[in-house]
Amino acid sequence: MKTNPALYAVVLAGGEGTRLWPVSRRRRPKQLLPLCGAETMLARTCARVRPLIPADRQFVITVASHAPEARAQVCAIPEENVVVEPLGHGTGPCIGLMALIIHHRDPDAIMVSLHADHAIQDEEALLSVLQTAAHAAAGGHLVTLGIVPSCPETGYGYIQRGELVDRVLGHDIYRVERFTEKPDLETARAFVADGGYYWNSGMFVWTVAAILEEMHRLLPDLYERLMEIRPALGSERQSEVIERIWGAVPRVSIDVGIMERAEDVVVVPADIGWDDVGSWNSVAGLLARDENGNVLEGEHVALDCQDTFIRSSGRLVAGVGLRGMIVIDTGDAVLVCPKDRAQDVKRIVEQLEREGKEEYL
Amino acid sequence: MKTNPALYAVVLAGGEGTRLWPVSRRRRPKQLLPLCGAETMLARTCARVRPLIPADRQFVITVASHAPEARAQVCAIPEENVVVEPLGHGTGPCIGLMALIIHHRDPDAIMVSLHADHAIQDEEALLSVLQTAAHAAAGGHLVTLGIVPSCPETGYGYIQRGELVDRVLGHDIYRVERFTEKPDLETARAFVADGGYYWNSGMFVWTVAAILEEMHRLLPDLYERLMEIRPALGSERQSEVIERIWGAVPRVSIDVGIMERAEDVVVVPADIGWDDVGSWNSVAGLLARDENGNVLEGEHVALDCQDTFIRSSGRLVAGVGLRGMIVIDTGDAVLVCPKDRAQDVKRIVEQLEREGKEEYL
Repeated sequence: MKTNPALYAVVLAGGEGTRLWPVSRRRRPKQLLPLCGAETMLARTCARVRPLIPADRQFVITVASHAPEARAQVCAIPEENVVVEPLGHGTGPCIGLMALIIHHRDPDAIMVSLHADHAIQDEEALLSVLQTAAHAAAGGHLVTLGIVPSCPETGYGYIQRGELVDRVLGHDIYRVERFTEKPDLETARAFVADGGYYWNSGMFVWTVAAILEEMHRLLPDLYERLMEIRPALGSERQSEVIERIWGAVPRVSIDVGIMERAEDVVVVPADIGWDDVGSWNSVAGLLARDENGNVLEGEHVALDCQDTFIRSSGRLVAGVGLRGMIVIDTGDAVLVCPKDRAQDVKRIVEQLEREGKEEYL
Repeated sequence: MKTNPALYAVVLAGGEGTRLWPVSRRRRPKQLLPLCGAETMLARTCARVRPLIPADRQFVITVASHAPEARAQVCAIPEENVVVEPLGHGTGPCIGLMALIIHHRDPDAIMVSLHADHAIQDEEALLSVLQTAAHAAAGGHLVTLGIVPSCPETGYGYIQRGELVDRVLGHDIYRVERFTEKPDLETARAFVADGGYYWNSGMFVWTVAAILEEMHRLLPDLYERLMEIRPALGSERQSEVIERIWGAVPRVSIDVGIMERAEDVVVVPADIGWDDVGSWNSVAGLLARDENGNVLEGEHVALDCQDTFIRSSGRLVAGVGLRGMIVIDTGDAVLVCPKDRAQDVKRIVEQLEREGKEEYL
């Protein structure tokens, strides 16, 4: 191994973001939208790690229908670094393919795997944590970033830390004791009170060699498919071969397939203002509120409203007497729901699918 | 007096309907809209009394900006029967002018004064009540229709009945004991429990001779102005003279100026499914509900919604988890408010006026 292995970023940009309908649509989902700022989430995800990882070592993996828009949004990144996954098979194959591609270019590479649709408010803290994680990864560990929980959230999986392994650049590195499923509220409260649990953010750091080795051991079917792609890497046939082989790739998430089963997994606690932007309620929480707790964007009139999120994209949204409501207006559709039902917005999308209303998807 | 004086209808169509924004606008207010049915409210108001009062004896009074649309909606009515009031000065001058115009044509006429923006569900019952009222009016009384209250509504004035005067065509005629202002809830409950109180609907029946005589006695200033108009009636100068004189006409409502002070006022109780369509909540109450108490119109998805009114005019309105909400969508604006705040929609219009957002008014 080189003494200073280079860092590569892989940004997973294949999500759907149905809970952010009607702004997030099939043709332009969450990660390709400027949901909480001027930049799109994908553009910001790439930009925020650029101080550590230059554009030519940043990769984006997305689906064919979003690739042109993704390339346009990250124009600093070489075009060939935007990889198309023919079909979504979960994070396992996706990360495996990217590890393979980067390994082909640099066998000593350290890979930082990020989601294109998460918000991180303290970007300096992220860079600091990533350096610690890279150090641990260089030592052979599979590293996961564990978000210091700010509340007993039941929508995330949790990581229980084990013994302290090291302390590098001001951050602790713990062995992972256990990954847990999304807990009930009582369990979540106990986790937060305990102090030894973190949210599983799905951000990982490892050497490409280590993750491929673990795939070989734990997901041999997937590994075998990846090895069939290997000879075509960098050639004109690359896309065509990926396309052909991808149909036979098993569906598996990196958490279930690797992280929960691998032996040498460590966690670096990260207090970075992370949010998965999983709902409109989440978006509202990331934006500045007025004295009544409202977030009001675009043309609006809001009389006697509290704790309400209005986002208009041109037309006038008028509310009176609203409490804890979400109103999202787009050119062809408007969403209205209470904040505590924000997770159910995906059910609207499901209903539209059932009704065959393609124009709204 | 002739033995069978003819009935004339006067439909007051000068309202604004700001509580029905964003559908009701300055250029096309409530009475010119099909708010609870296929016909516009003005058209329905004229049509429902036509079995009793033919079109050539129906009159509409409105403001200049709405006159072309009003004429188009009631094309069965002779064009000259749609009268323009240069400025709104309350119902007193408006009714006085119409009484004068009808008196010029038929001094024995009985005038039925109606609002263009009320809903009446039992139209046969209305016609029956009007015949009784016309009988009483022919006897010289000023007659008001008193709506049998269905709940202790605090948004209406009440009429307390006095002694029974007569019973004609199956309807009682009572002397009016007293008109009362909009009561508080406790008082309204007492009124409803008492059984001797009715909602003041603003529907009146009288001979034009009787109402003009009362104006002469109780509103001499107004009467004097009307007499200045008299010589021009039916001539080409009519509109011009009305326009010139109207600036000096005193502002007064028929209730305060005449009904509360006149001596010979009677009330005919009317159980006719009357509603003043004063808010979106009121509109919702007039329409068929689904099994969850929702009224859902136009393109929509409503998941787990109850007691909610959605009206879309083209775009998709999607709600999840809504309880007792109103969502009204138009081409350029969307209104969201809880049903119990429906009266406050007018505050949105006031706010838009303050902000100078003419395009939404």
